[in-house]
Amino acid sequence: MLPAKISSVQIPKHRDMKSFTKEIWFTTKKTFELINITREIEALLKESGIKEGLCLVNAMHITASVFINDDESGLHHDFQVWLEKLAPHEPVASYRHNTAEINADAHMKRQIMGREVVVAVTGGKLHFGPWEQIFYGEFDGQRRKRVLVKIIGE
Amino acid sequence: MLPAKISSVQIPKHRDMKSFTKEIWFTTKKTFELINITREIEALLKESGIKEGLCLVNAMHITASVFINDDESGLHHDFQVWLEKLAPHEPVASYRHNTAEINADAHMKRQIMGREVVVAVTGGKLHFGPWEQIFYGEFDGQRRKRVLVKIIGE
Amino acid sequence: MLPAKISSVQIPKHRDMKSFTKEIWFTTKKTFELINITREIEALLKESGIKEGLCLVNAMHITASVFINDDESGLHHDFQVWLEKLAPHEPVASYRHNTAEINADAHMKRQIMGREVVVAVTGGKLHFGPWEQIFYGEFDGQRRKRVLVKIIGE
Repeated sequence: MLPAKISSVQIPKHRDMKSFTKEIWFTTKKTFELINITREIEALLKESGIKEGLCLVNAMHITASVFINDDESGLHHDFQVWLEKLAPHEPVASYRHNTAEINADAHMKRQIMGREVVVAVTGGKLHFGPWEQIFYGEFDGQRRKRVLVKIIGE
Repeated sequence: MLPAKISSVQIPKHRDMKSFTKEIWFTTKKTFELINITREIEALLKESGIKEGLCLVNAMHITASVFINDDESGLHHDFQVWLEKLAPHEPVASYRHNTAEINADAHMKRQIMGREVVVAVTGGKLHFGPWEQIFYGEFDGQRRKRVLVKIIGE
Repeated sequence: MLPAKISSVQIPKHRDMKSFTKEIWFTTKKTFELINITREIEALLKESGIKEGLCLVNAMHITASVFINDDESGLHHDFQVWLEKLAPHEPVASYRHNTAEINADAHMKRQIMGREVVVAVTGGKLHFGPWEQIFYGEFDGQRRKRVLVKIIGE
């Protein structure tokens, strides 16, 4: 009788919140580069074991972006031309920020392209539409920079 | 004495993490449309039963946006004129992306307006300021596209 | 023997989801201001007790932004000049929104700079790169406005 009583103690099943954190390093060869990092993020999601939740991917530097768009080289060329038109590097002396540095334009390009994306995680996968790909956008490259991946869920 | 001992087993109260996922389909009549989807998102939040957490709403296509701004028709006209000025559709041949398609400008308009919003959920409601409304922004319409709603919390 | 049995009841350790919500009020003296709010957000994160999760910080008004960039006064001047070029306040009559108000440009500046940031929380800290700072960007100031902080995690 007694063991029965003990076994009747109900332990509720809980869906624990998990979190996963990883930094990825990049060193670009050029000042301006758009790098597809979708495969890397998918691998980290798998490593995390998280099935349902949210995946934050953000640039850790303020002259770089993480954004979602198309993986098409013509479009990437167009992005570069367009960003240069909206936030031109030259004339360098037109920016007050450029007394110590010459990357004011890169801070602006980053605002247009955005710092981060938040992607839904469903059934252990990045929940994407047909053409969505994650890019690291570098606008002041040729030095070491990081992207942060933070996944929370269960 | 024994039952007292058994009843003294402490089962901690837990606040489980829940998640809710839904895709919403749109087919716009025009190339450019801004559609208020606040009521739809509120209905899905209610359906989810989630009281505290975060609600991600994102375009699943890369020539569309989800953003938060004012529901005022004059402003929406101004947004269209402004986006056309910053990322003009014409001349189509000025974009390398447009060898197969003619929507390079829509990919750029989407970057300015953003892919997604993350909205706080407090007391079972979208935690909004006085004029915040969620919009689906279509920049290359007249075909079927999706918005994803992912809510996590408890 | 019996107490041993009772003590063998396994209570799994759970990592509960917690949430924390706070609104911060601002009244700017000027129409255009960029205010560093990093210290305020750090203090709220500490108050929340959350160690791992996501921290959403968003403007609750549609002519203001929350964004992450550099705390450098030259760059802030450059941002103001640049935003005025991309979304000029004058001529006021060029915007249809401005029949009742004269802040259409502020709604556009906000789209470029963004509504919100989502910051990873790791080990009880905002998980930042070396120069990341959170700013409240006001583009139609001189009145009371709010920023929302929502932290979820454990």
